[in-house]
Amino acid sequence: MRKVFYISDGTAITAEILGHAVLSQFDIEFEQITIPFVESMEKAAEVVIKIDQSFFEQQPPLIFHSIVDEKIRATIERCNGISYDFLNTFVAPLEKQLGIKAEPKTHRTHGIANEAYSARIDAINYSLDNDDGISLKHLDKSELILVGVSRCGKTPSSLYLAMQFGIATANYPFINEDMENLKLPPELKKNKHKIFGLTIDPYRLHEIRTQRLANSKYASLRQCRAEVKEVEMLYRRERIPFIDTTKHSVEEITAKIIDTTGLKRQMF
Amino acid sequence: MRKVFYISDGTAITAEILGHAVLSQFDIEFEQITIPFVESMEKAAEVVIKIDQSFFEQQPPLIFHSIVDEKIRATIERCNGISYDFLNTFVAPLEKQLGIKAEPKTHRTHGIANEAYSARIDAINYSLDNDDGISLKHLDKSELILVGVSRCGKTPSSLYLAMQFGIATANYPFINEDMENLKLPPELKKNKHKIFGLTIDPYRLHEIRTQRLANSKYASLRQCRAEVKEVEMLYRRERIPFIDTTKHSVEEITAKIIDTTGLKRQMF
Repeated sequence: MRKVFYISDGTAITAEILGHAVLSQFDIEFEQITIPFVESMEKAAEVVIKIDQSFFEQQPPLIFHSIVDEKIRATIERCNGISYDFLNTFVAPLEKQLGIKAEPKTHRTHGIANEAYSARIDAINYSLDNDDGISLKHLDKSELILVGVSRCGKTPSSLYLAMQFGIATANYPFINEDMENLKLPPELKKNKHKIFGLTIDPYRLHEIRTQRLANSKYASLRQCRAEVKEVEMLYRRERIPFIDTTKHSVEEITAKIIDTTGLKRQMF
Repeated sequence: MRKVFYISDGTAITAEILGHAVLSQFDIEFEQITIPFVESMEKAAEVVIKIDQSFFEQQPPLIFHSIVDEKIRATIERCNGISYDFLNTFVAPLEKQLGIKAEPKTHRTHGIANEAYSARIDAINYSLDNDDGISLKHLDKSELILVGVSRCGKTPSSLYLAMQFGIATANYPFINEDMENLKLPPELKKNKHKIFGLTIDPYRLHEIRTQRLANSKYASLRQCRAEVKEVEMLYRRERIPFIDTTKHSVEEITAKIIDTTGLKRQMF
Protein backbone atom coordinates (compact mmCIF):
# COMPACT_ATOMS: atom_id res chain seq x y z
CA MET A 1 0.00 0.00 0.00
CA ARG A 2 1.28 3.47 -0.78
CA LYS A 3 2.47 5.35 2.27
CA VAL A 4 1.44 8.74 3.62
CA PHE A 5 3.29 10.64 6.33
CA TYR A 6 1.79 13.36 8.51
CA ILE A 7 4.64 15.37 9.97
CA SER A 8 4.84 18.33 12.33
CA ASP A 9 7.01 20.01 14.93
CA GLY A 10 3.85 20.17 17.06
CA THR A 11 1.13 17.58 17.75
CA ALA A 12 0.61 16.81 14.00
CA ILE A 13 -3.14 16.97 14.58
CA THR A 14 -3.56 19.75 12.01
CA ALA A 15 -1.51 17.85 9.41
CA GLU A 16 -3.53 14.68 10.07
CA ILE A 17 -6.92 16.34 9.86
CA LEU A 18 -6.26 18.25 6.68
CA GLY A 19 -4.36 15.40 5.04
CA HIS A 20 -7.17 13.04 5.91
CA ALA A 21 -9.75 15.47 4.49
CA VAL A 22 -7.84 15.82 1.22
CA LEU A 23 -7.14 12.10 0.80
CA SER A 24 -10.74 11.15 1.58
CA GLN A 25 -11.60 12.69 -1.80
CA PHE A 26 -9.79 9.77 -3.43
CA ASP A 27 -11.02 6.22 -3.46
CA ILE A 28 -7.67 4.64 -2.56
CA GLU A 29 -6.34 3.19 0.66
CA PHE A 30 -3.06 4.39 2.09
CA GLU A 31 -0.84 3.30 4.93
CA GLN A 32 -0.81 6.33 7.20
CA ILE A 33 2.07 7.21 9.52
CA THR A 34 2.04 10.21 11.87
CA ILE A 35 5.27 11.70 13.21
CA PRO A 36 4.69 14.56 15.69
CA PHE A 37 7.20 16.66 17.65
CA VAL A 38 9.95 16.78 15.03
CA GLU A 39 11.69 19.50 17.00
CA SER A 40 15.38 18.96 16.32
CA MET A 41 17.53 18.71 13.19
CA GLU A 42 18.61 15.22 14.32
CA LYS A 43 15.02 14.00 14.46
CA ALA A 44 14.30 15.66 11.11
CA ALA A 45 17.25 13.83 9.54
CA GLU A 46 16.00 10.52 10.95
CA VAL A 47 12.53 11.18 9.56
CA VAL A 48 13.98 11.86 6.10
CA ILE A 49 15.78 8.50 6.17
CA LYS A 50 12.54 6.80 7.18
CA ILE A 51 10.64 8.51 4.36
CA ASP A 52 13.27 7.63 1.77
CA GLN A 53 12.98 3.97 2.75
CA SER A 54 9.21 4.03 2.31
CA PHE A 55 8.81 3.76 -1.43
CA PHE A 56 6.10 1.27 -2.40
CA GLU A 57 6.62 -0.37 -5.78
CA GLN A 58 8.63 2.67 -6.84
CA GLN A 59 5.84 5.04 -5.78
CA PRO A 60 7.19 7.81 -3.57
CA PRO A 61 5.40 8.35 -0.24
CA LEU A 62 3.23 11.43 0.19
CA ILE A 63 4.27 13.87 2.91
CA PHE A 64 1.67 16.19 4.41
CA HIS A 65 3.35 18.54 6.78
CA SER A 66 2.60 21.51 8.96
CA ILE A 67 5.98 22.60 10.29
CA VAL A 68 6.52 26.00 11.85
CA ASP A 69 10.34 25.94 12.16
CA GLU A 70 11.90 26.96 8.85
CA LYS A 71 15.08 24.89 9.08
CA ILE A 72 13.24 21.74 10.05
CA ARG A 73 10.78 22.28 7.24
CA ALA A 74 13.63 22.70 4.73
CA THR A 75 15.25 19.47 5.94
CA ILE A 76 12.03 17.47 5.63
CA GLU A 77 11.43 18.85 2.15
CA ARG A 78 14.79 17.53 1.03
CA CYS A 79 13.36 13.98 1.21
CA ASN A 80 12.48 12.01 -1.91
CA GLY A 81 8.76 11.88 -1.08
CA ILE A 82 6.19 14.27 -2.50
CA SER A 83 5.71 17.12 -0.03
CA TYR A 84 2.52 19.05 0.57
CA ASP A 85 3.14 22.04 2.83
CA PHE A 86 -0.12 23.01 4.54
CA LEU A 87 1.12 25.91 6.57
CA ASN A 88 3.34 27.71 4.11
CA THR A 89 1.06 27.36 1.14
CA PHE A 90 -1.33 29.71 2.87
CA VAL A 91 1.03 31.72 5.06
CA ALA A 92 2.86 33.45 2.19
CA PRO A 93 -0.29 34.78 0.45
CA LEU A 94 -1.67 35.79 3.86
CA GLU A 95 1.44 37.78 4.70
CA LYS A 96 0.85 39.76 1.53
CA GLN A 97 -2.84 40.24 2.23
CA LEU A 98 -2.36 41.24 5.89
CA GLY A 99 0.72 43.34 5.20
CA ILE A 100 2.66 41.79 8.10
CA LYS A 101 5.13 38.96 8.47
CA ALA A 102 4.14 35.72 10.16
CA GLU A 103 5.83 35.16 13.51
CA PRO A 104 6.33 31.42 13.58
CA LYS A 105 5.71 29.92 17.00
CA THR A 106 5.46 26.20 17.55
CA HIS A 107 2.60 24.91 19.70
CA ARG A 108 0.56 28.04 19.23
CA THR A 109 -2.21 26.13 17.46
CA HIS A 110 -2.86 23.54 20.09
CA GLY A 111 -1.01 25.07 23.01
CA ILE A 112 -2.25 26.01 26.44
CA ALA A 113 -1.34 29.70 26.02
CA ASN A 114 -4.78 30.01 24.54
CA GLU A 115 -6.89 31.96 27.05
CA ALA A 116 -9.96 29.89 26.31
CA TYR A 117 -8.15 26.76 27.45
CA SER A 118 -9.27 26.68 31.06
CA ALA A 119 -12.84 27.45 30.01
CA ARG A 120 -12.58 24.38 27.83
CA ILE A 121 -11.39 22.16 30.67
CA ASP A 122 -14.25 23.57 32.77
CA ALA A 123 -16.69 22.67 30.00
CA ILE A 124 -15.35 19.09 29.88
CA ASN A 125 -15.66 18.73 33.64
CA TYR A 126 -19.13 20.24 33.59
CA SER A 127 -20.28 17.83 30.88
CA LEU A 128 -18.90 14.84 32.77
CA ASP A 129 -20.45 15.91 36.07
CA ASN A 130 -23.79 16.40 34.36
CA ASP A 131 -23.78 13.31 32.18
CA ASP A 132 -26.79 11.01 32.00
CA GLY A 133 -28.97 13.03 34.35
CA ILE A 134 -26.54 12.38 37.24
CA SER A 135 -27.44 15.77 38.64
CA LEU A 136 -30.23 18.16 37.78
CA LYS A 137 -29.01 20.79 40.24
CA HIS A 138 -26.61 22.59 37.96
CA LEU A 139 -28.65 22.84 34.80
CA ASP A 140 -28.71 26.63 35.12
CA LYS A 141 -24.96 26.58 34.50
CA SER A 142 -25.27 24.62 31.25
CA GLU A 143 -25.21 26.21 27.84
CA LEU A 144 -27.05 23.28 26.30
CA ILE A 145 -29.00 20.22 27.51
CA LEU A 146 -29.23 17.16 25.27
CA VAL A 147 -32.15 14.81 25.87
CA GLY A 148 -33.15 11.47 24.37
CA VAL A 149 -33.60 7.75 25.00
CA SER A 150 -30.77 5.62 26.38
CA ARG A 151 -27.99 4.97 23.78
CA CYS A 152 -29.06 7.48 21.17
CA GLY A 153 -25.73 9.34 21.28
CA LYS A 154 -26.13 11.89 24.11
CA THR A 155 -22.89 11.22 25.95
CA PRO A 156 -20.40 11.22 23.05
CA SER A 157 -22.14 14.32 21.65
CA SER A 158 -22.00 16.16 25.01
CA LEU A 159 -18.32 15.39 25.45
CA TYR A 160 -17.47 16.38 21.90
CA LEU A 161 -19.33 19.68 22.32
CA ALA A 162 -17.26 20.39 25.43
CA MET A 163 -13.93 19.17 24.07
CA GLN A 164 -14.02 20.56 20.55
CA PHE A 165 -16.17 23.66 20.97
CA GLY A 166 -15.95 24.51 24.69
CA ILE A 167 -19.71 24.29 25.23
CA ALA A 168 -20.83 23.18 28.72
CA THR A 169 -23.38 20.50 27.86
CA ALA A 170 -25.57 18.52 30.25
CA ASN A 171 -27.54 15.52 29.13
CA TYR A 172 -30.65 13.80 30.42
CA PRO A 173 -32.04 10.37 29.48
CA PHE A 174 -35.72 9.44 29.14
CA ILE A 175 -36.04 5.93 30.52
CA ASN A 176 -38.69 3.24 30.36
CA GLU A 177 -40.25 4.36 33.65
CA ASP A 178 -40.87 7.83 32.18
CA MET A 179 -42.75 6.56 29.14
CA GLU A 180 -46.24 6.02 30.58
CA ASN A 181 -46.85 9.72 30.92
CA LEU A 182 -43.84 11.33 29.28
CA LYS A 183 -43.20 14.95 30.18
CA LEU A 184 -40.30 17.23 30.99
CA PRO A 185 -39.24 17.20 34.66
CA PRO A 186 -39.60 20.65 36.31
CA GLU A 187 -35.80 21.23 36.31
CA LEU A 188 -35.75 20.77 32.54
CA LYS A 189 -38.87 22.82 32.02
CA LYS A 190 -37.17 25.79 33.69
CA ASN A 191 -34.29 25.50 31.21
CA LYS A 192 -36.40 24.64 28.20
CA HIS A 193 -34.73 27.16 25.89
CA LYS A 194 -31.49 25.19 26.27
CA ILE A 195 -32.93 21.77 25.42
CA PHE A 196 -32.06 19.95 22.21
CA GLY A 197 -33.44 16.50 21.43
CA LEU A 198 -31.72 13.51 19.86
CA THR A 199 -33.57 10.71 18.19
CA ILE A 200 -32.53 7.54 16.37
CA ASP A 201 -33.92 4.87 14.10
CA PRO A 202 -35.55 2.23 16.38
CA TYR A 203 -33.89 -0.64 14.50
CA ARG A 204 -30.43 0.87 14.91
CA LEU A 205 -31.21 1.50 18.59
CA HIS A 206 -32.21 -2.16 18.94
CA GLU A 207 -28.83 -3.20 17.46
CA ILE A 208 -26.86 -0.93 19.78
CA ARG A 209 -28.77 -2.01 22.88
CA THR A 210 -28.46 -5.68 21.91
CA GLN A 211 -24.67 -5.31 21.96
CA ARG A 212 -24.98 -4.03 25.50
CA LEU A 213 -27.71 -6.28 26.89
CA ALA A 214 -28.81 -9.02 24.48
CA ASN A 215 -32.32 -10.51 24.73
CA SER A 216 -33.50 -7.97 27.30
CA LYS A 217 -36.75 -6.04 27.23
CA TYR A 218 -34.52 -2.92 27.13
CA ALA A 219 -32.98 -4.06 23.83
CA SER A 220 -36.13 -5.43 22.20
CA LEU A 221 -37.25 -3.86 18.95
CA ARG A 222 -40.73 -3.41 20.40
CA GLN A 223 -39.40 -1.41 23.36
CA CYS A 224 -37.07 0.65 21.16
CA ARG A 225 -39.95 1.53 18.84
CA ALA A 226 -42.22 2.53 21.72
CA GLU A 227 -39.60 4.72 23.41
CA VAL A 228 -38.59 6.51 20.23
CA LYS A 229 -42.23 7.15 19.34
CA GLU A 230 -43.06 8.62 22.76
CA VAL A 231 -39.97 10.81 22.82
CA GLU A 232 -40.51 12.18 19.31
CA MET A 233 -44.11 13.01 20.25
CA LEU A 234 -42.81 14.91 23.27
CA TYR A 235 -40.37 16.87 21.08
CA ARG A 236 -43.19 17.87 18.74
CA ARG A 237 -45.61 18.69 21.55
CA GLU A 238 -43.07 20.83 23.39
CA ARG A 239 -41.54 22.23 20.21
CA ILE A 240 -38.09 20.99 21.14
CA PRO A 241 -35.70 21.08 18.16
CA PHE A 242 -34.26 17.63 17.45
CA ILE A 243 -31.95 15.71 15.17
CA ASP A 244 -31.77 12.09 14.03
CA THR A 245 -28.35 10.70 14.95
CA THR A 246 -28.69 7.40 13.06
CA LYS A 247 -26.49 8.20 10.09
CA HIS A 248 -24.34 10.94 11.53
CA SER A 249 -20.98 11.12 13.28
CA VAL A 250 -20.47 13.14 16.49
CA GLU A 251 -18.81 15.83 14.36
CA GLU A 252 -21.90 16.12 12.18
CA ILE A 253 -24.42 15.92 15.03
CA THR A 254 -22.69 18.56 17.11
CA ALA A 255 -21.96 20.91 14.20
CA LYS A 256 -25.64 20.68 13.26
CA ILE A 257 -26.78 21.41 16.83
CA ILE A 258 -24.52 24.46 17.04
CA ASP A 259 -25.73 25.65 13.65
CA THR A 260 -29.40 25.28 14.67
CA THR A 261 -29.11 26.84 18.12
CA GLY A 262 -26.71 29.62 17.19
CA LEU A 263 -24.39 28.71 20.09
CA LYS A 264 -20.86 30.06 19.85
CA ARG A 265 -18.07 27.67 18.78
CA GLN A 266 -14.85 28.30 20.65
CA MET A 267 -11.58 27.40 18.99
CA PHE A 268 -8.54 25.83 20.64
CA MET B 1 -11.81 43.76 13.98
CA ARG B 2 -11.16 42.14 10.63
CA LYS B 3 -13.45 39.21 9.90
CA VAL B 4 -12.62 35.62 9.00
CA PHE B 5 -15.14 33.09 7.70
CA TYR B 6 -14.74 29.31 7.88
CA ILE B 7 -17.09 27.79 5.34
CA SER B 8 -17.91 24.23 4.33
CA ASP B 9 -20.64 22.03 2.90
CA GLY B 10 -19.81 19.64 5.77
CA THR B 11 -19.15 20.28 9.46
CA ALA B 12 -16.54 23.02 8.76
CA ILE B 13 -14.29 21.43 11.36
CA THR B 14 -11.48 20.92 8.85
CA ALA B 15 -11.73 24.53 7.62
CA GLU B 16 -11.70 25.81 11.21
CA ILE B 17 -8.74 23.74 12.31
CA LEU B 18 -6.53 24.55 9.35
CA GLY B 19 -7.60 28.20 9.23
CA HIS B 20 -6.92 28.52 12.94
CA ALA B 21 -3.48 26.90 12.51
CA VAL B 22 -2.56 29.27 9.69
CA LEU B 23 -3.85 32.42 11.40
CA SER B 24 -2.16 31.55 14.69
CA GLN B 25 1.12 32.33 12.89
CA PHE B 26 0.08 35.98 12.88
CA ASP B 27 -0.08 38.19 15.92
CA ILE B 28 -3.46 39.76 15.06
CA GLU B 29 -6.93 39.19 16.40
CA PHE B 30 -9.79 38.37 14.08
CA GLU B 31 -13.51 38.04 14.46
CA GLN B 32 -14.15 34.43 13.47
CA ILE B 33 -17.41 33.20 11.96
CA THR B 34 -18.06 29.55 11.07
CA ILE B 35 -20.74 28.59 8.56
CA PRO B 36 -21.14 24.80 8.18
CA PHE B 37 -23.55 22.79 5.99
CA VAL B 38 -23.69 25.16 3.02
CA GLU B 39 -25.36 22.48 0.97
CA SER B 40 -27.64 24.39 -1.40
CA MET B 41 -27.13 27.17 -3.93
CA GLU B 42 -29.65 29.28 -2.00
CA LYS B 43 -27.63 29.01 1.18
CA ALA B 44 -24.41 29.72 -0.75
CA ALA B 45 -25.96 32.88 -2.19
CA GLU B 46 -27.00 34.01 1.31
CA VAL B 47 -23.49 33.40 2.59
CA VAL B 48 -22.00 35.50 -0.22
CA ILE B 49 -24.29 38.40 0.74
CA LYS B 50 -23.22 38.05 4.35
CA ILE B 51 -19.54 38.02 3.37
CA ASP B 52 -19.89 41.05 1.14
CA GLN B 53 -21.43 43.00 4.01
CA SER B 54 -18.52 42.13 6.28
CA PHE B 55 -15.83 44.55 5.20
CA PHE B 56 -14.06 46.14 8.16
CA GLU B 57 -12.66 49.61 7.46
CA GLN B 58 -12.45 48.67 3.78
CA GLN B 59 -10.54 45.48 4.57
CA PRO B 60 -12.10 42.50 2.85
CA PRO B 61 -12.94 39.49 5.04
CA LEU B 62 -10.81 36.35 4.72
CA ILE B 63 -12.60 33.19 3.60
CA PHE B 64 -11.12 29.82 4.50
CA HIS B 65 -13.15 27.12 2.89
CA SER B 66 -13.20 23.39 2.40
CA ILE B 67 -16.09 22.77 0.03
CA VAL B 68 -16.49 19.50 -1.83
CA ASP B 69 -19.34 20.47 -4.18
CA GLU B 70 -17.94 22.28 -7.21
CA LYS B 71 -20.90 24.57 -7.90
CA ILE B 72 -21.20 25.69 -4.30
CA ARG B 73 -17.49 26.34 -4.19
CA ALA B 74 -17.66 28.44 -7.34
CA THR B 75 -20.53 30.49 -5.90
CA ILE B 76 -18.70 31.18 -2.65
CA GLU B 77 -15.56 32.19 -4.55
CA ARG B 78 -17.55 34.83 -6.40
CA CYS B 79 -17.73 36.85 -3.15
CA ASN B 80 -15.63 39.98 -2.62
CA GLY B 81 -13.66 38.47 0.26
CA ILE B 82 -10.23 36.88 -0.13
CA SER B 83 -10.70 33.12 -0.58
CA TYR B 84 -8.33 30.40 0.55
CA ASP B 85 -9.36 27.01 -0.80
CA PHE B 86 -7.97 24.28 1.45
CA LEU B 87 -9.30 21.30 -0.37
CA ASN B 88 -8.69 22.19 -3.98
CA THR B 89 -5.25 23.63 -3.46
CA PHE B 90 -4.05 20.15 -2.65
CA VAL B 91 -6.53 18.02 -4.58
CA ALA B 92 -5.38 19.13 -8.05
CA PRO B 93 -1.68 18.31 -7.53
CA LEU B 94 -2.67 15.06 -5.85
CA GLU B 95 -4.78 14.01 -8.81
CA LYS B 96 -1.70 14.43 -10.95
CA GLN B 97 0.52 12.54 -8.53
CA LEU B 98 -1.93 9.67 -7.99
CA GLY B 99 -2.96 9.50 -11.63
CA ILE B 100 -6.68 9.36 -10.74
CA LYS B 101 -9.46 11.89 -10.43
CA ALA B 102 -10.87 12.86 -7.06
CA GLU B 103 -14.42 11.65 -6.46
CA PRO B 104 -15.90 14.43 -4.40
CA LYS B 105 -18.18 13.19 -1.64
CA THR B 106 -19.46 15.45 1.09
CA HIS B 107 -19.30 14.20 4.67
CA ARG B 108 -16.65 11.62 3.88
CA THR B 109 -14.15 13.31 6.18
CA HIS B 110 -16.20 13.36 9.33
CA GLY B 111 -18.97 10.97 8.34
CA ILE B 112 -20.10 7.78 9.99
CA ALA B 113 -19.37 5.63 6.89
CA ASN B 114 -15.92 5.30 8.36
CA GLU B 115 -15.58 1.71 9.60
CA ALA B 116 -13.57 2.76 12.59
CA TYR B 117 -16.49 4.85 13.84
CA SER B 118 -18.12 2.31 16.11
CA ALA B 119 -14.73 1.38 17.55
CA ARG B 120 -14.37 5.03 18.40
CA ILE B 121 -17.73 5.20 20.20
CA ASP B 122 -16.73 2.03 22.06
CA ALA B 123 -13.46 3.71 23.08
CA ILE B 124 -15.37 6.76 24.40
CA ASN B 125 -17.75 4.56 26.39
CA TYR B 126 -14.86 2.50 27.72
CA SER B 127 -12.99 5.59 28.84
CA LEU B 128 -16.07 6.96 30.60
CA ASP B 129 -16.87 3.68 32.32
CA ASN B 130 -13.29 3.41 33.49
CA ASP B 131 -12.76 7.00 34.53
CA ASP B 132 -11.25 7.93 37.88
CA GLY B 133 -10.69 4.36 39.02
CA ILE B 134 -14.46 3.70 39.06
CA SER B 135 -13.76 0.13 38.10
CA LEU B 136 -10.56 -1.89 38.09
CA LYS B 137 -12.26 -4.97 36.65
CA HIS B 138 -11.89 -4.13 32.98
CA LEU B 139 -8.29 -2.93 32.87
CA ASP B 140 -7.35 -5.88 30.65
CA LYS B 141 -9.56 -4.35 27.96
CA SER B 142 -7.79 -1.00 28.04
CA GLU B 143 -5.10 0.01 25.60
CA LEU B 144 -3.69 2.57 28.02
CA ILE B 145 -4.04 3.45 31.72
CA LEU B 146 -3.30 6.98 32.87
CA VAL B 147 -2.38 7.46 36.53
CA GLY B 148 -1.68 10.53 38.67
CA VAL B 149 -2.89 12.69 41.56
CA SER B 150 -6.38 14.18 41.57
CA ARG B 151 -6.78 17.10 39.09
CA CYS B 152 -3.57 16.59 37.14
CA GLY B 153 -5.39 16.15 33.81
CA LYS B 154 -6.22 12.43 33.65
CA THR B 155 -9.88 12.69 32.69
CA PRO B 156 -9.67 15.23 29.84
CA SER B 157 -6.64 13.36 28.47
CA SER B 158 -8.42 9.98 28.61
CA LEU B 159 -11.48 11.33 26.85
CA TYR B 160 -9.42 13.08 24.20
CA LEU B 161 -7.45 9.90 23.53
CA ALA B 162 -10.72 8.04 23.00
CA MET B 163 -12.47 10.75 21.01
CA GLN B 164 -9.67 11.92 18.73
CA PHE B 165 -7.56 8.80 18.40
CA GLY B 166 -9.93 5.91 19.25
CA ILE B 167 -7.74 4.64 22.10
CA ALA B 168 -9.61 2.93 24.97
CA THR B 169 -8.06 4.67 27.97
CA ALA B 170 -8.73 3.95 31.65
CA ASN B 171 -7.52 6.24 34.38
CA TYR B 172 -6.72 5.78 38.05
CA PRO B 173 -6.15 8.43 40.72
CA PHE B 174 -3.66 8.24 43.59
CA ILE B 175 -5.41 9.83 46.56
CA ASN B 176 -4.27 11.11 49.94
CA GLU B 177 -5.03 7.79 51.65
CA ASP B 178 -2.59 6.01 49.29
CA MET B 179 0.32 8.31 50.05
CA GLU B 180 1.63 6.80 53.30
CA ASN B 181 2.94 3.72 51.52
CA LEU B 182 2.43 4.45 47.85
CA LYS B 183 2.46 1.46 45.54
CA LEU B 184 0.59 0.14 42.54
CA PRO B 185 -2.57 -1.85 43.35
CA PRO B 186 -2.39 -5.48 42.10
CA GLU B 187 -4.84 -4.80 39.22
CA LEU B 188 -2.53 -2.06 37.93
CA LYS B 189 0.60 -4.10 38.49
CA LYS B 190 -0.81 -6.81 36.19
CA ASN B 191 -1.24 -4.21 33.45
CA LYS B 192 1.95 -2.32 34.13
CA HIS B 193 3.07 -2.20 30.50
CA LYS B 194 -0.01 -0.08 29.74
CA ILE B 195 0.52 2.50 32.50
CA PHE B 196 1.49 6.07 31.73
CA GLY B 197 1.95 8.66 34.49
CA LEU B 198 0.91 12.29 34.57
CA THR B 199 2.47 14.84 36.87
CA ILE B 200 1.99 18.56 37.42
CA ASP B 201 3.67 21.52 39.06
CA PRO B 202 2.49 21.52 42.72
CA TYR B 203 1.77 25.24 42.67
CA ARG B 204 -0.45 24.91 39.60
CA LEU B 205 -2.17 21.93 41.23
CA HIS B 206 -2.79 24.04 44.33
CA GLU B 207 -4.43 26.71 42.14
CA ILE B 208 -6.65 24.19 40.36
CA ARG B 209 -7.73 22.47 43.57
CA THR B 210 -8.38 25.81 45.27
CA GLN B 211 -10.91 26.63 42.56
CA ARG B 212 -12.68 23.39 43.40
CA LEU B 213 -12.38 23.33 47.20
CA ALA B 214 -10.85 26.49 48.63
CA ASN B 215 -9.04 26.39 52.01
CA SER B 216 -9.16 22.60 52.25
CA LYS B 217 -6.28 20.33 53.18
CA TYR B 218 -6.82 18.79 49.71
CA ALA B 219 -6.05 22.11 48.04
CA SER B 220 -3.21 23.22 50.32
CA LEU B 221 0.17 23.80 48.73
CA ARG B 222 1.75 21.57 51.34
CA GLN B 223 -0.53 18.65 50.45
CA CYS B 224 -0.07 19.21 46.70
CA ARG B 225 3.71 19.22 47.11
CA ALA B 226 3.67 16.03 49.16
CA GLU B 227 1.41 14.13 46.76
CA VAL B 228 3.34 15.13 43.65
CA LYS B 229 6.63 14.19 45.29
CA GLU B 230 5.38 10.74 46.34
CA VAL B 231 3.87 10.01 42.96
CA GLU B 232 6.95 11.06 41.01
CA MET B 233 9.06 8.84 43.27
CA LEU B 234 6.75 5.94 42.46
CA TYR B 235 7.08 6.61 38.72
CA ARG B 236 10.87 6.53 38.97
CA ARG B 237 10.95 3.48 41.23
CA GLU B 238 8.60 1.50 38.96
CA ARG B 239 10.06 2.93 35.74
CA ILE B 240 6.69 4.26 34.64
CA PRO B 241 7.05 6.76 31.77
CA PHE B 242 5.50 10.11 32.69
CA ILE B 243 4.83 13.59 31.42
CA ASP B 244 4.38 16.98 33.10
CA THR B 245 1.00 18.40 32.09
CA THR B 246 1.49 21.87 33.61
CA LYS B 247 2.19 23.78 30.42
CA HIS B 248 0.56 21.51 27.87
CA SER B 249 -2.85 21.27 26.25
CA VAL B 250 -4.72 17.96 25.97
CA GLU B 251 -3.67 17.82 22.32
CA GLU B 252 -0.01 18.08 23.28
CA ILE B 253 -0.22 15.71 26.25
CA THR B 254 -2.01 13.00 24.30
CA ALA B 255 0.11 13.34 21.14
CA LYS B 256 3.21 13.02 23.35
CA ILE B 257 1.85 9.93 25.10
CA ILE B 258 1.07 8.25 21.78
CA ASP B 259 4.48 9.17 20.45
CA THR B 260 6.24 7.73 23.54
CA THR B 261 4.22 4.52 23.78
CA GLY B 262 3.99 3.81 20.06
CA LEU B 263 0.20 3.32 20.29
CA LYS B 264 -1.66 3.53 16.99
CA ARG B 265 -3.60 6.73 16.22
CA GLN B 266 -6.89 6.03 14.49
CA MET B 267 -8.33 8.65 12.20
CA PHE B 268 -11.98 9.62 11.82
